[in-house]
Amino acid sequence: MMLWLFDGITMARHTEEENARDRAAALHPACELCRSPGGMLVLQRPHWRLVRVEDQDFPAYYRVIWNAHCAELTDLTPEQRHECLDAVAEVEAVLRRHLRPTKINLAAFGNMVPHLHWHIIARHVWDSHFPQPVWGPRQREVPEGARARLAATPATLDQAMREAFGPTSEAK
Amino acid sequence: MMLWLFDGITMARHTEEENARDRAAALHPACELCRSPGGMLVLQRPHWRLVRVEDQDFPAYYRVIWNAHCAELTDLTPEQRHECLDAVAEVEAVLRRHLRPTKINLAAFGNMVPHLHWHIIARHVWDSHFPQPVWGPRQREVPEGARARLAATPATLDQAMREAFGPTSEAK
Ligand SMILES: [Zn+2]
Ligand SMILES: [Zn+2]
Repeated sequence: MMLWLFDGITMARHTEEENARDRAAALHPACELCRSPGGMLVLQRPHWRLVRVEDQDFPAYYRVIWNAHCAELTDLTPEQRHECLDAVAEVEAVLRRHLRPTKINLAAFGNMVPHLHWHIIARHVWDSHFPQPVWGPRQREVPEGARARLAATPATLDQAMREAFGPTSEAK
Repeated sequence: MMLWLFDGITMARHTEEENARDRAAALHPACELCRSPGGMLVLQRPHWRLVRVEDQDFPAYYRVIWNAHCAELTDLTPEQRHECLDAVAEVEAVLRRHLRPTKINLAAFGNMVPHLHWHIIARHVWDSHFPQPVWGPRQREVPEGARARLAATPATLDQAMREAFGPTSEAK
Protein backbone atom coordinates (compact mmCIF):
# COMPACT_ATOMS: atom_id res chain seq x y z
CA MET A 1 0.00 0.00 0.00
CA MET A 2 1.31 3.49 -0.85
CA LEU A 3 0.15 6.63 0.91
CA TRP A 4 -0.96 9.36 -1.43
CA LEU A 5 -1.69 12.96 -0.47
CA PHE A 6 -4.59 14.53 -2.32
CA ASP A 7 -6.31 17.77 -1.38
CA GLY A 8 -5.09 17.41 2.16
CA ILE A 9 -6.61 13.95 2.51
CA THR A 10 -4.32 10.97 2.93
CA MET A 11 -5.66 8.26 0.68
CA ALA A 12 -4.61 4.66 0.61
CA ARG A 13 -3.75 3.85 -2.97
CA HIS A 14 -3.62 0.14 -3.53
CA THR A 15 -0.96 -1.48 -5.63
CA GLU A 16 -1.96 -3.60 -8.62
CA GLU A 17 -1.34 -6.70 -6.52
CA GLU A 18 -3.59 -5.51 -3.74
CA ASN A 19 -6.31 -4.67 -6.25
CA ALA A 20 -6.07 -8.12 -7.80
CA ARG A 21 -6.25 -9.75 -4.40
CA ASP A 22 -9.24 -7.59 -3.44
CA ARG A 23 -11.09 -8.71 -6.56
CA ALA A 24 -10.28 -12.37 -5.89
CA ALA A 25 -11.32 -12.10 -2.25
CA ALA A 26 -14.62 -10.48 -3.26
CA LEU A 27 -15.32 -13.34 -5.66
CA HIS A 28 -14.31 -16.11 -3.25
CA PRO A 29 -14.57 -14.74 0.30
CA ALA A 30 -14.03 -18.16 1.88
CA CYS A 31 -10.86 -19.00 -0.05
CA GLU A 32 -7.69 -18.68 1.97
CA LEU A 33 -5.51 -18.28 -1.14
CA CYS A 34 -7.71 -15.49 -2.48
CA ARG A 35 -7.70 -13.65 0.85
CA SER A 36 -3.98 -13.96 1.54
CA PRO A 37 -0.74 -14.60 -0.38
CA GLY A 38 -0.33 -18.06 1.21
CA GLY A 39 3.22 -17.41 2.44
CA MET A 40 5.81 -14.61 2.34
CA LEU A 41 5.13 -12.93 -1.00
CA VAL A 42 8.32 -12.91 -3.07
CA LEU A 43 6.94 -11.85 -6.42
CA GLN A 44 3.66 -11.41 -8.17
CA ARG A 45 2.84 -12.08 -11.81
CA PRO A 46 -0.47 -11.71 -13.64
CA HIS A 47 -1.16 -15.47 -13.60
CA TRP A 48 0.81 -16.72 -10.63
CA ARG A 49 2.78 -15.63 -7.61
CA LEU A 50 5.82 -16.93 -5.77
CA VAL A 51 5.77 -17.17 -1.97
CA ARG A 52 8.25 -18.55 0.54
CA VAL A 53 6.89 -20.92 3.16
CA GLU A 54 8.20 -20.33 6.68
CA ASP A 55 9.09 -23.84 7.82
CA GLN A 56 11.73 -24.42 10.48
CA ASP A 57 12.74 -27.79 9.05
CA PHE A 58 12.77 -26.61 5.43
CA PRO A 59 13.89 -22.99 5.21
CA ALA A 60 14.31 -23.17 1.41
CA TYR A 61 10.67 -23.98 0.65
CA TYR A 62 8.81 -22.00 -2.02
CA ARG A 63 5.39 -22.18 -3.62
CA VAL A 64 4.26 -21.13 -7.09
CA ILE A 65 0.53 -20.45 -6.71
CA TRP A 66 -1.80 -20.02 -9.69
CA ASN A 67 -3.79 -16.85 -8.96
CA ALA A 68 -7.12 -17.91 -10.48
CA HIS A 69 -9.33 -20.78 -9.34
CA CYS A 70 -7.87 -23.66 -11.29
CA ALA A 71 -7.39 -26.76 -9.20
CA GLU A 72 -5.81 -29.19 -11.63
CA LEU A 73 -2.87 -28.90 -14.00
CA THR A 74 -5.18 -29.90 -16.86
CA ASP A 75 -7.56 -27.04 -16.01
CA LEU A 76 -4.90 -24.78 -17.50
CA THR A 77 -4.40 -24.37 -21.24
CA PRO A 78 -1.20 -25.99 -22.57
CA GLU A 79 0.39 -22.51 -22.78
CA GLN A 80 -0.55 -21.72 -19.17
CA ARG A 81 0.77 -25.12 -18.10
CA HIS A 82 4.10 -24.40 -19.69
CA GLU A 83 4.16 -20.90 -18.15
CA CYS A 84 3.47 -22.36 -14.71
CA LEU A 85 6.05 -25.15 -15.00
CA ASP A 86 8.65 -22.77 -16.45
CA ALA A 87 8.22 -20.72 -13.27
CA VAL A 88 8.63 -23.86 -11.16
CA ALA A 89 11.79 -24.73 -13.12
CA GLU A 90 13.21 -21.23 -12.62
CA VAL A 91 12.66 -21.48 -8.85
CA GLU A 92 14.37 -24.87 -8.89
CA ALA A 93 17.31 -23.41 -10.86
CA VAL A 94 17.81 -20.61 -8.31
CA LEU A 95 17.72 -23.06 -5.41
CA ARG A 96 20.22 -25.36 -7.10
CA ARG A 97 22.57 -22.47 -7.94
CA HIS A 98 22.60 -21.01 -4.44
CA LEU A 99 22.29 -24.10 -2.24
CA ARG A 100 23.67 -27.06 -4.21
CA PRO A 101 21.03 -29.19 -2.45
CA THR A 102 21.03 -32.99 -2.51
CA LYS A 103 17.71 -32.90 -4.38
CA ILE A 104 14.81 -30.68 -5.29
CA ASN A 105 11.35 -31.98 -4.44
CA LEU A 106 8.31 -30.84 -6.42
CA ALA A 107 4.68 -31.52 -5.61
CA ALA A 108 1.18 -30.30 -6.41
CA PHE A 109 -1.57 -31.69 -4.17
CA GLY A 110 -4.11 -28.93 -3.58
CA ASN A 111 -6.44 -31.26 -1.73
CA MET A 112 -7.72 -28.38 0.35
CA VAL A 113 -7.68 -25.23 -1.82
CA PRO A 114 -8.99 -24.62 -5.37
CA HIS A 115 -5.68 -23.16 -6.58
CA LEU A 116 -3.07 -25.23 -8.37
CA HIS A 117 0.09 -24.62 -6.34
CA TRP A 118 3.51 -26.17 -6.60
CA HIS A 119 5.68 -26.92 -3.60
CA ILE A 120 9.37 -26.51 -4.45
CA ILE A 121 11.65 -27.65 -1.65
CA ALA A 122 15.43 -27.89 -1.46
CA ARG A 123 16.38 -31.14 0.27
CA HIS A 124 19.65 -32.15 1.90
CA VAL A 125 20.92 -35.54 3.09
CA TRP A 126 21.12 -34.11 6.60
CA ASP A 127 17.60 -32.67 6.73
CA SER A 128 14.96 -33.83 9.19
CA HIS A 129 13.12 -36.11 6.71
CA PHE A 130 15.61 -37.13 4.00
CA PRO A 131 15.21 -39.36 2.00
CA GLN A 132 11.50 -39.37 2.90
CA PRO A 133 9.17 -36.71 1.47
CA VAL A 134 8.70 -33.77 3.85
CA TRP A 135 5.17 -35.09 4.44
CA GLY A 136 6.52 -38.46 5.58
CA PRO A 137 7.97 -39.60 8.91
CA ARG A 138 10.74 -37.55 10.52
CA GLN A 139 14.11 -39.31 10.22
CA ARG A 140 16.34 -37.30 12.57
CA GLU A 141 16.84 -34.11 14.57
CA VAL A 142 19.04 -31.32 13.21
CA PRO A 143 20.41 -29.88 16.47
CA GLU A 144 21.81 -26.61 15.07
CA GLY A 145 18.67 -26.07 13.00
CA ALA A 146 18.27 -26.35 9.23
CA ARG A 147 18.60 -22.63 8.60
CA ALA A 148 22.09 -22.54 10.08
CA ARG A 149 23.24 -25.23 7.67
CA LEU A 150 21.94 -23.67 4.46
CA ALA A 151 24.50 -22.12 2.10
CA ALA A 152 22.34 -18.97 1.76
CA THR A 153 19.84 -17.13 3.94
CA PRO A 154 16.15 -17.02 2.99
CA ALA A 155 16.51 -13.25 2.35
CA THR A 156 19.34 -13.92 -0.12
CA LEU A 157 17.26 -16.59 -1.84
CA ASP A 158 14.23 -14.28 -2.08
CA GLN A 159 16.39 -11.61 -3.68
CA ALA A 160 17.91 -14.14 -6.08
CA MET A 161 14.38 -15.24 -7.09
CA ARG A 162 13.38 -11.64 -7.85
CA GLU A 163 16.52 -11.13 -9.91
CA ALA A 164 16.08 -14.40 -11.82
CA PHE A 165 12.52 -13.51 -12.81
CA GLY A 166 13.25 -9.88 -13.62
CA PRO A 167 10.93 -6.92 -12.95
CA THR A 168 7.58 -7.75 -11.37
CA SER A 169 4.24 -7.35 -13.09
CA GLU A 170 3.88 -3.76 -11.87
CA ALA A 171 6.92 -2.69 -13.84
CA LYS A 172 6.06 -4.32 -17.13
CA MET B 1 10.93 -61.14 -26.02
CA MET B 2 10.12 -62.90 -29.30
CA LEU B 3 11.47 -66.34 -30.22
CA TRP B 4 13.11 -66.48 -33.63
CA LEU B 5 14.09 -69.66 -35.50
CA PHE B 6 17.32 -69.41 -37.48
CA ASP B 7 19.28 -72.34 -38.93
CA GLY B 8 17.70 -74.68 -36.45
CA ILE B 9 18.80 -72.55 -33.46
CA THR B 10 16.14 -70.85 -31.35
CA MET B 11 17.42 -67.33 -30.69
CA ALA B 12 15.98 -64.86 -28.29
CA ARG B 13 15.35 -61.67 -30.24
CA HIS B 14 14.89 -58.75 -27.93
CA THR B 15 12.33 -56.05 -28.52
CA GLU B 16 13.48 -52.43 -28.83
CA GLU B 17 12.40 -51.83 -25.24
CA GLU B 18 14.42 -54.75 -23.95
CA ASN B 19 17.45 -53.58 -25.92
CA ALA B 20 17.16 -50.09 -24.49
CA ARG B 21 16.84 -51.48 -20.99
CA ASP B 22 19.83 -53.77 -21.53
CA ARG B 23 21.95 -50.80 -22.61
CA ALA B 24 20.84 -48.78 -19.58
CA ALA B 25 21.46 -51.68 -17.20
CA ALA B 26 24.94 -52.20 -18.66
CA LEU B 27 25.76 -48.53 -18.12
CA HIS B 28 24.32 -48.36 -14.60
CA PRO B 29 24.22 -51.89 -13.18
CA ALA B 30 23.31 -50.68 -9.69
CA CYS B 31 20.36 -48.54 -10.77
CA GLU B 32 16.98 -50.08 -10.01
CA LEU B 33 15.22 -47.97 -12.65
CA CYS B 34 17.72 -48.99 -15.35
CA ARG B 35 17.41 -52.69 -14.45
CA SER B 36 13.61 -52.80 -14.21
CA PRO B 37 10.60 -50.77 -15.39
CA GLY B 38 9.81 -49.55 -11.86
CA GLY B 39 6.18 -50.70 -11.93
CA MET B 40 3.78 -52.42 -14.33
CA LEU B 41 4.93 -51.15 -17.73
CA VAL B 42 2.01 -49.49 -19.52
CA LEU B 43 3.83 -47.83 -22.37
CA GLN B 44 7.32 -47.03 -23.48
CA ARG B 45 8.52 -43.95 -25.34
CA PRO B 46 12.05 -43.03 -26.45
CA HIS B 47 12.52 -40.52 -23.61
CA TRP B 48 10.15 -41.75 -20.92
CA ARG B 49 7.91 -44.61 -19.92
CA LEU B 50 4.61 -44.92 -18.10
CA VAL B 51 4.17 -47.52 -15.36
CA ARG B 52 1.37 -48.28 -12.96
CA VAL B 53 2.25 -48.67 -9.30
CA GLU B 54 0.57 -51.57 -7.54
CA ASP B 55 -0.61 -49.98 -4.32
CA GLN B 56 -3.56 -51.40 -2.42
CA ASP B 57 -4.58 -48.00 -1.03
CA PHE B 58 -4.12 -46.15 -4.33
CA PRO B 59 -5.01 -48.41 -7.26
CA ALA B 60 -4.99 -45.46 -9.72
CA TYR B 61 -1.34 -44.54 -9.19
CA TYR B 62 0.92 -44.04 -12.23
CA ARG B 63 4.50 -42.92 -12.76
CA VAL B 64 6.08 -41.16 -15.73
CA ILE B 65 9.77 -42.10 -15.53
CA TRP B 66 12.46 -40.33 -17.57
CA ASN B 67 14.52 -43.13 -19.16
CA ALA B 68 17.94 -41.46 -19.02
CA HIS B 69 19.83 -40.46 -15.88
CA CYS B 70 18.47 -37.00 -15.26
CA ALA B 71 17.61 -36.39 -11.65
CA GLU B 72 16.20 -32.87 -11.69
CA LEU B 73 13.57 -31.18 -13.83
CA THR B 74 16.16 -28.53 -14.75
CA ASP B 75 18.56 -31.22 -15.99
CA LEU B 76 16.20 -31.53 -18.97
CA THR B 77 16.17 -29.05 -21.84
CA PRO B 78 13.08 -26.81 -21.93
CA GLU B 79 11.72 -28.96 -24.81
CA GLN B 80 12.25 -32.18 -22.83
CA ARG B 81 10.64 -30.56 -19.78
CA HIS B 82 7.56 -29.73 -21.79
CA GLU B 83 7.50 -33.24 -23.31
CA CYS B 84 7.71 -34.79 -19.85
CA LEU B 85 5.06 -32.56 -18.33
CA ASP B 86 2.76 -32.97 -21.33
CA ALA B 87 2.91 -36.72 -20.64
CA VAL B 88 2.08 -36.11 -16.98
CA ALA B 89 -0.87 -33.92 -18.02
CA GLU B 90 -2.14 -36.60 -20.43
CA VAL B 91 -2.07 -39.20 -17.64
CA GLU B 92 -3.93 -36.77 -15.40
CA ALA B 93 -6.53 -36.18 -18.13
CA VAL B 94 -7.19 -39.92 -18.53
CA LEU B 95 -7.57 -40.38 -14.77
CA ARG B 96 -9.98 -37.46 -14.53
CA ARG B 97 -12.05 -38.68 -17.47
CA HIS B 98 -12.42 -42.24 -16.19
CA LEU B 99 -12.54 -41.77 -12.43
CA ARG B 100 -13.82 -38.23 -11.73
CA PRO B 101 -11.53 -38.22 -8.69
CA THR B 102 -11.70 -35.60 -5.94
CA LYS B 103 -8.20 -34.45 -6.88
CA ILE B 104 -5.09 -35.43 -8.78
CA ASN B 105 -1.82 -35.37 -6.84
CA LEU B 106 1.48 -34.84 -8.66
CA ALA B 107 4.96 -35.15 -7.19
CA ALA B 108 8.59 -35.58 -8.20
CA PHE B 109 10.95 -36.41 -5.35
CA GLY B 110 13.58 -38.84 -6.68
CA ASN B 111 15.55 -38.74 -3.45
CA MET B 112 16.73 -42.30 -4.00
CA VAL B 113 17.09 -42.85 -7.78
CA PRO B 114 18.85 -40.74 -10.45
CA HIS B 115 15.78 -40.67 -12.72
CA LEU B 116 13.31 -37.83 -12.71
CA HIS B 117 9.95 -39.53 -12.18
CA TRP B 118 6.51 -38.13 -11.61
CA HIS B 119 3.96 -39.70 -9.31
CA ILE B 120 0.42 -39.16 -10.62
CA ILE B 121 -2.22 -40.32 -8.18
CA ALA B 122 -6.02 -40.11 -8.31
CA ARG B 123 -7.32 -39.12 -4.89
CA HIS B 124 -10.81 -39.45 -3.43
CA VAL B 125 -12.39 -37.95 -0.32
CA TRP B 126 -12.93 -41.48 0.98
CA ASP B 127 -9.39 -42.74 0.42
CA SER B 128 -7.10 -43.88 3.24
CA HIS B 129 -5.11 -40.63 3.46
CA PHE B 130 -7.31 -37.83 2.07
CA PRO B 131 -6.78 -34.85 2.41
CA GLN B 132 -3.22 -35.70 3.47
CA PRO B 133 -0.60 -36.58 0.84
CA VAL B 134 -0.26 -40.34 0.35
CA TRP B 135 3.10 -40.05 2.12
CA GLY B 136 1.44 -38.52 5.20
CA PRO B 137 -0.43 -40.11 8.09
CA ARG B 138 -3.26 -42.54 7.35
CA GLN B 139 -6.67 -40.95 8.05
CA ARG B 140 -9.03 -43.93 7.88
CA GLU B 141 -9.61 -47.53 6.83
CA VAL B 142 -11.50 -48.33 3.61
CA PRO B 143 -13.15 -51.62 4.59
CA GLU B 144 -14.19 -52.76 1.11
CA GLY B 145 -10.81 -51.75 -0.32
CA ALA B 146 -10.00 -48.84 -2.60
CA ARG B 147 -10.05 -50.89 -5.79
CA ALA B 148 -13.71 -51.86 -5.27
CA ARG B 149 -14.70 -48.19 -5.05
CA LEU B 150 -12.94 -46.97 -8.19
CA ALA B 151 -15.11 -46.16 -11.21
CA ALA B 152 -12.79 -48.17 -13.50
CA THR B 153 -10.46 -51.14 -13.08
CA PRO B 154 -6.68 -50.72 -13.36
CA ALA B 155 -6.76 -52.79 -16.59
CA THR B 156 -9.32 -50.40 -18.09
CA LEU B 157 -7.20 -47.43 -17.05
CA ASP B 158 -4.04 -48.97 -18.55
CA GLN B 159 -5.86 -49.51 -21.83
CA ALA B 160 -7.21 -45.94 -21.77
CA MET B 161 -3.67 -44.65 -21.24
CA ARG B 162 -2.38 -46.58 -24.25
CA GLU B 163 -5.23 -45.26 -26.38
CA ALA B 164 -4.73 -41.67 -25.23
CA PHE B 165 -1.04 -41.72 -26.12
CA GLY B 166 -1.46 -43.58 -29.40
CA PRO B 167 0.92 -46.20 -30.83
CA THR B 168 4.03 -46.92 -28.77
CA SER B 169 7.55 -46.08 -29.85
CA GLU B 170 8.00 -49.44 -31.57
CA ALA B 171 5.23 -48.71 -34.04
CA LYS B 172 6.29 -45.20 -35.00
ZN1 LIG C 1 -9.10 -18.68 -4.19
ZN1 LIG D 1 19.14 -45.68 -13.99
